[in-house]
Amino acid sequence: MSASEEVAPLRHVERLAVRYAETDQMGVVHHSNYLVWFEQARTGLCIARGFPYHEIEASGVWLMVTGAHLKYRGGAAYGDEVDVSVWVSRYQSRALHFDYEVTRGDELLVSGTTEHVWVDVATKRTCRIPSHLVGPFRELAGLDRVTGKLD
Amino acid sequence: MSASEEVAPLRHVERLAVRYAETDQMGVVHHSNYLVWFEQARTGLCIARGFPYHEIEASGVWLMVTGAHLKYRGGAAYGDEVDVSVWVSRYQSRALHFDYEVTRGDELLVSGTTEHVWVDVATKRTCRIPSHLVGPFRELAGLDRVTGKLD
Amino acid sequence: MSASEEVAPLRHVERLAVRYAETDQMGVVHHSNYLVWFEQARTGLCIARGFPYHEIEASGVWLMVTGAHLKYRGGAAYGDEVDVSVWVSRYQSRALHFDYEVTRGDELLVSGTTEHVWVDVATKRTCRIPSHLVGPFRELAGLDRVTGKLD
Amino acid sequence: MSASEEVAPLRHVERLAVRYAETDQMGVVHHSNYLVWFEQARTGLCIARGFPYHEIEASGVWLMVTGAHLKYRGGAAYGDEVDVSVWVSRYQSRALHFDYEVTRGDELLVSGTTEHVWVDVATKRTCRIPSHLVGPFRELAGLDRVTGKLD
Repeated sequence: MSASEEVAPLRHVERLAVRYAETDQMGVVHHSNYLVWFEQARTGLCIARGFPYHEIEASGVWLMVTGAHLKYRGGAAYGDEVDVSVWVSRYQSRALHFDYEVTRGDELLVSGTTEHVWVDVATKRTCRIPSHLVGPFRELAGLDRVTGKLD
Repeated sequence: MSASEEVAPLRHVERLAVRYAETDQMGVVHHSNYLVWFEQARTGLCIARGFPYHEIEASGVWLMVTGAHLKYRGGAAYGDEVDVSVWVSRYQSRALHFDYEVTRGDELLVSGTTEHVWVDVATKRTCRIPSHLVGPFRELAGLDRVTGKLD
Repeated sequence: MSASEEVAPLRHVERLAVRYAETDQMGVVHHSNYLVWFEQARTGLCIARGFPYHEIEASGVWLMVTGAHLKYRGGAAYGDEVDVSVWVSRYQSRALHFDYEVTRGDELLVSGTTEHVWVDVATKRTCRIPSHLVGPFRELAGLDRVTGKLD
Repeated sequence: MSASEEVAPLRHVERLAVRYAETDQMGVVHHSNYLVWFEQARTGLCIARGFPYHEIEASGVWLMVTGAHLKYRGGAAYGDEVDVSVWVSRYQSRALHFDYEVTRGDELLVSGTTEHVWVDVATKRTCRIPSHLVGPFRELAGLDRVTGKLD
């Protein structure tokens, strides 16, 4: 029996301390920084799964950002520690979506999605996901897994 | 005859030179910076209409960001000059949406929307748009105008 | 016997993973980000000593930056983890200096100093260090301690 | 008679509007941003002299930052327009220093220096200034000029 549809994507959580430089004169984190945090969580996700993104780039492909959506419910402040959760919300041969939640304790501060395509660095054209990454990313997306035991 | 529905919102265009610090190792502007550029264009729009945003804040309200959407088609590079266009795409008594286009010559690089609510700085609660700003912002939105002659 | 002069200041080390957004088109971290890392290390130092900087600010004083000096020997890259060390290099009643070293393994990448004065938030004037912080900061600076056992 | 020693270096001034994102919770521009402004002024200086820095990089050399010094006297605020002045303060065959002043009207806010070496992009080693840039940069530095008439 295939359990593909029923298996949730794998979450990675990155804990961050708010940097003073990330605040603005409203006294909370400037809204552009959440995209930077999302990216840091993606970095952490790839490291946790054993294929660091800097190695993916070195192999000749970019996972280029084509879209971003953010919903701001509350603002993180200097002195806060926040958790940035990330998971693959859509898997296609040429595109990936990631979803995110930034929380402070039980409080959801910001949620969002980023959309990406694979790009061949040499030609600067979109391409299919490199074959050696198909398995790991399908697994991240919750596809093709029989068990949830991954860590 | 009311021409409200037929009048386009007023556009403001801010010309920017890409900063070296805004690039990343892909060789183009990091995707988070477009939110900063959008904000700079909003600043310019308010100045052009005669109600600088720092004066709006000083009067006790914030136009707080509650959402953002970006679509990336191409990347600005160091050495480029780009135009960031902004206009009010939705006007409500408690909320405003702005739309944006970043272009390099004829090429559309990035488009986007930001969503905002008015917040009373003293109480940190959402509020209605201050009365003295109703006219200017409705005009920006292309509402309540008989003629298009504004500049 | 006073050992003041012989006691080294206390070091705090903050480990950071380079963020993609921190790189520029040279392929290494943009030189402005080291000031942000220095600040994050100061934040960590204060937390480690039990007087978080956001609480210091909340008590009504700023430790305002009046000068900065950086020497760049090598560049951190995306994929690197670096250690940012910080210690109090000069203690005065109205001023503090911090020194920093950013290392990647055994390699020293960047070193620097930041200079600060205490400022009363209410009056925006310089002031003396708050009395409850004299002890902790003198101790950080390696003054007034008989033993080096602090953690 | 050589007037080399008596000729002042050429100044370039870049006018900037403070960005909201550049402020921090102290209500003024975060101190790291001045390095970004210095860089933007260097970019403007090179453009004004007819050799844009992105073309210098494209020709195979970097003017890499090896040191930076900043003195903060006052803080720029959102709503301010500031002038960032830059000039070559030291010219050597393998190194260049630039000095800066950030002013708001007559008020000097920040001054600084950045130190640079020429680096061959291909080998990542320091090198001499490319021959076609010797004349322009010596002229910027106020060397080898008979008259001050340059613009």
